[in-house]
Amino acid sequence: MEHMKRSERLVIMTRVLTESPNVVHNLSEFCEMFDVAKSTVSEDIDLISGAVSLSGKGRVDTISGAAGGVMYRSFYTRDDACRILSDIALVLSMPGRLLPGGFLYTSDVASDPKYTRVMGEIVAQKYFDKLPDFVLTMETKGIPFALMTAQALNVPLVVARRDSRAYEGSAVKINYLSGAKSEKLDTMAISRRAVKAGQKALIVDDFAKGGGTLKGMCEMMTECQIEVIGVEVMIKTLEPKEKLCENVWALLELRGTDRLSGSCDVAVDENYMPA
Amino acid sequence: MEHMKRSERLVIMTRVLTESPNVVHNLSEFCEMFDVAKSTVSEDIDLISGAVSLSGKGRVDTISGAAGGVMYRSFYTRDDACRILSDIALVLSMPGRLLPGGFLYTSDVASDPKYTRVMGEIVAQKYFDKLPDFVLTMETKGIPFALMTAQALNVPLVVARRDSRAYEGSAVKINYLSGAKSEKLDTMAISRRAVKAGQKALIVDDFAKGGGTLKGMCEMMTECQIEVIGVEVMIKTLEPKEKLCENVWALLELRGTDRLSGSCDVAVDENYMPA
Repeated sequence: MEHMKRSERLVIMTRVLTESPNVVHNLSEFCEMFDVAKSTVSEDIDLISGAVSLSGKGRVDTISGAAGGVMYRSFYTRDDACRILSDIALVLSMPGRLLPGGFLYTSDVASDPKYTRVMGEIVAQKYFDKLPDFVLTMETKGIPFALMTAQALNVPLVVARRDSRAYEGSAVKINYLSGAKSEKLDTMAISRRAVKAGQKALIVDDFAKGGGTLKGMCEMMTECQIEVIGVEVMIKTLEPKEKLCENVWALLELRGTDRLSGSCDVAVDENYMPA
Repeated sequence: MEHMKRSERLVIMTRVLTESPNVVHNLSEFCEMFDVAKSTVSEDIDLISGAVSLSGKGRVDTISGAAGGVMYRSFYTRDDACRILSDIALVLSMPGRLLPGGFLYTSDVASDPKYTRVMGEIVAQKYFDKLPDFVLTMETKGIPFALMTAQALNVPLVVARRDSRAYEGSAVKINYLSGAKSEKLDTMAISRRAVKAGQKALIVDDFAKGGGTLKGMCEMMTECQIEVIGVEVMIKTLEPKEKLCENVWALLELRGTDRLSGSCDVAVDENYMPA
């Protein structure tokens, strides 16, 4: 791609950077791509960095040193994140979402790339500097949200299963107490080759009521000698206040349900974003 | 965002377009965003469109008419797609992936955002003009690939479950024959509110051997009066050649396994990309 105009380089570099979030690109990668001097690439990067900051959805940072280069990370301001999450809370609070048994219907939101992508990016920005090796979730409903978080962090996703499967090879399998009142003994399995002792895990799931499944995932990580650097869910219930798993962060909070109108009160969790 | 330089507009517009694939943006959206004339935005779009074509990974198309505007779609040339898929086939053919029982370990690749994103984009480009309303997959392993396909097409993802769940509301539930020799009767359920009669579905899954699960998904769609516009999997086995489900397209083909070396022969499916 020789002799491109600056405008063309800017478009292509913007794509390369934003499509591979949290990846360090050495400037020489772009020098070779466009056959231009490092100083030219540096000027291009400065322009991109400034424009990305103006757009308010991400940051382009320059990392100095031998392994240095330039890197894009999604980044939302507190106001933007609150606005996005409020819109999602509004969708989840619409009448007709309350199901028999008092459950809130969330499957459409939890599997929509449009919603899960921004929520995953909002979660990811808390963990860039904690360097997770992978994101862990429990099948099924949390997978899209966890995948988008993993994408923003540029790490793999590991999915725990309700049971070990022949096509996942030898497994680590634990028993854990699930249900809001820890009344049920469940099993959880992950493929042994999916993780390594000494790694760091970020746990991401769609919903927390009692917190038993999240606690199970933490126990699974202990079993595998892996450090848990955070536990994040899309929605947690206000009650019970004390979850079985400690330090659960939730983007949204289910505050209550109204059986008469069939609606639920979902709001942004005010503890989520530091003021 | 008034009085920006062209270079800044190009960076921001490139992000807006590529982050919302298959979405028509009216030019007035950009006129308002930057407070510039339509002719200026048109010139910017032409520059972006040219540069995106040069990068060879997507297209920016202009749609004329009242509902017109500009739209980004991922698009890989046959050569680029083959190169990307060959690299993934190579990862899957590495020694040590053959599990007891003759299964191929694919979970890491099937849940990695890096791999599933490009595979989802490659699948999506066949279906832009067929206007699917949603992507359907069966839990669990196909979800990341299906989600990325849905993202590239800008449609929701619907996940069929092995059983209906109280937190998904009333369900459509069918029985289907699974296993390579149709030897097992399984059930499959989807939430009734996830789909509507008259819609079009694109079925996406991770693996096809006998094809029973794919056939089950097709039958589920018939039950819901929904048209299936395509059936796509990441990997299909060479044997049995005749799958229970007709017209299954696979990006990759599992040609054979070698128990002695523990390796599998995975290659790009030559029928996939029209020459």
